[in-house]
Amino acid sequence: MRFLTVRYEGQQRVAIEAESDPHQLGFLPPAFSSLLDVIDAGDEVPAPVEWAVFDDVQLLAPIPCPRRNILCVGMNYCEHSIEFSQSGFDTSATTTSQPEFPIIFSKFGSSVVGPGETIDLLPHVTSQVDYEAELAVLIGKQGRDIPVDKAMDFVWGYTVINDVTARDRQKRHRQWLLGKTLDGFCPMGPRAVTRDEVDLSDTRLTCYVNDELRQEANTRELIFSVPEIISVISEGFTLQPGDLIATGTPAGVGIGYDPPRFLKPGDCVRIEISNVGTLENTFK
Amino acid sequence: MRFLTVRYEGQQRVAIEAESDPHQLGFLPPAFSSLLDVIDAGDEVPAPVEWAVFDDVQLLAPIPCPRRNILCVGMNYCEHSIEFSQSGFDTSATTTSQPEFPIIFSKFGSSVVGPGETIDLLPHVTSQVDYEAELAVLIGKQGRDIPVDKAMDFVWGYTVINDVTARDRQKRHRQWLLGKTLDGFCPMGPRAVTRDEVDLSDTRLTCYVNDELRQEANTRELIFSVPEIISVISEGFTLQPGDLIATGTPAGVGIGYDPPRFLKPGDCVRIEISNVGTLENTFK
Repeated sequence: MRFLTVRYEGQQRVAIEAESDPHQLGFLPPAFSSLLDVIDAGDEVPAPVEWAVFDDVQLLAPIPCPRRNILCVGMNYCEHSIEFSQSGFDTSATTTSQPEFPIIFSKFGSSVVGPGETIDLLPHVTSQVDYEAELAVLIGKQGRDIPVDKAMDFVWGYTVINDVTARDRQKRHRQWLLGKTLDGFCPMGPRAVTRDEVDLSDTRLTCYVNDELRQEANTRELIFSVPEIISVISEGFTLQPGDLIATGTPAGVGIGYDPPRFLKPGDCVRIEISNVGTLENTFK
Repeated sequence: MRFLTVRYEGQQRVAIEAESDPHQLGFLPPAFSSLLDVIDAGDEVPAPVEWAVFDDVQLLAPIPCPRRNILCVGMNYCEHSIEFSQSGFDTSATTTSQPEFPIIFSKFGSSVVGPGETIDLLPHVTSQVDYEAELAVLIGKQGRDIPVDKAMDFVWGYTVINDVTARDRQKRHRQWLLGKTLDGFCPMGPRAVTRDEVDLSDTRLTCYVNDELRQEANTRELIFSVPEIISVISEGFTLQPGDLIATGTPAGVGIGYDPPRFLKPGDCVRIEISNVGTLENTFK
C-alpha cells in the first residue's frame, strides 16, 4: 500500500493511493490523521471513507512531526565512504575508509519538512550545505535486541529522506548532530509505502541537482543491510513504532567533487527511489 | 524554587520543597503532573494545593519522558578532555585535546531513569560501562540564534544527569549516539531547581563510585560556558521549552584510569551538585 499525508480542506489527513489510479486518493477516517496512527493500528487500518483527486491536496511529509529523533546511518555505501574520507570533512578518525561497524547519528524531528517546501540555506550559520539522498525505513513495532533474521518483521515500510547536511558544522563540531539537525534540513516524502512494495535487493536510488544526475545507486550496494542496521541499533535500545532510520547516502554528494559543489539559492534537489517516490525541494 | 517529580498515592505529581523544611512537599494541582507543564506555564505556576512529607513519595526523574533527545556537550572540562584524548577511546579526530568548538551529541529520551533506579549494565551489549557526572540545563522558552548575552534568559533551571556511556560502543561506532543512548543510560534528578538557585561561577560537582571520590570540579571550569553552549546549539536550530542540555563531565571517569575502571554489578554511583542535589543509582 502507498500512503500520503496531505492537507485537504484545511485538515491533515492520511490518504491511500488507489492501485488502479494513483491520482485517486482515498482518505482514512479523520481519527487517523497521522501515519503514526496507521502504524500503531497494525493490521487494523480502516478502509478509506472519502475520495478526492491528487490535485486537490497539499503534500506533507509522511510523518511531519516524528515522535523521536530520526536515526541515520553514515558512510553506508562504499564509494561514498571513500569520497567522504578523502574530502577532508571526515572527523570520525579511521585509517580505513569503509566502516567496520555502522556509524549511527540522529537528526531532531524538528528538522522535517515536506515535499516541495523551500529550504532556507541558513547562510548566517553555514556556507556548505550538501544533499544526501537516502531510503528511510519506518519501524512498525517495538523491539529490542532484534536478531538480523527477525529484523524485517519490525519494518513497516519506507520513505525518501534528504539528509541535508551543513558540512562546515559537521566537521567543526566533530560529532555530526549540529551539522545535520538544522531547521528544515530533513525533507521527507512524499510517499510512505509498506514494506511489500520495496525489494531491498534491487531498488534504484538517484539524486539530481537542477536535473544534473549526481547520485545513483542500488540498495543492494548498502554496506550494512537494513536488517543488520536494525539489529545493531536495537542492541540494548528499544526501537518504537514510528521510528525512522535513514539508511545512508551513495557517492556523489557535493563534497565528493573537487572543488566541492555546495547548494546555492535556487538549486532544486530531486531524489527518486524506485517504487517509493520522488522528493523534490528547492533551496533559498 | 526547588521541584521534584514524584509518585504519590499512585499518581505522578510535581511537588515544591518548602523553603523552611525541604522534607515538606507542596503538590501542584494534578493538571501540572509534569515539570514540562510547569515550564510551559512560565510565570503562571500555581501555588501548592496539598502537602505531604518527603518519606511518603517515590522520586522520579524530573522529566521522566523528555519530549526530545537530550543534548549533551562532550569534552567540556579541560582535564577530562585530556584524559579522553589519551584513553584511546576518542574517535573524534583531532590533534589537540581541547576542542575548538563545542562537541554536541544526544541521548534519546527513552534512556531516562529516575534517582534510585537500578540500571542494567546490559552485558550482552557492552562490557565497558562508564559514568559521567553532569550539570544539565533545562530550557524554559523557545529560541533560535540566541546571542550569548541573552542566553541565560532561555534557561529555566538545572538538574543532575549521569551521562552513562558504553565506551566500547562509543568507540566502535565512531559517532557516539549508540554508546550513549542505551535503555536506562540517562539517570536524572532528583531535583530540578530554577536558575536563581545556581551560581554557574561557583558550583561544585562531585561523583563517587561506592563512596570513592572519582570526579570533582567546579562549573567555572567549563571550557564552553552555559550561555556559549546555548548560543552555538541554537544557531539555525530552534530550542524548545523542556529541552535538556547536559553540559559535560569533568576528569575522573573510568577510562581516565590505567587500566580503565568500568562499572561492575553492585556499583553505586552518586553525583552531588551544590544547590541542585544528589543523584544516586546502583548498577546491576
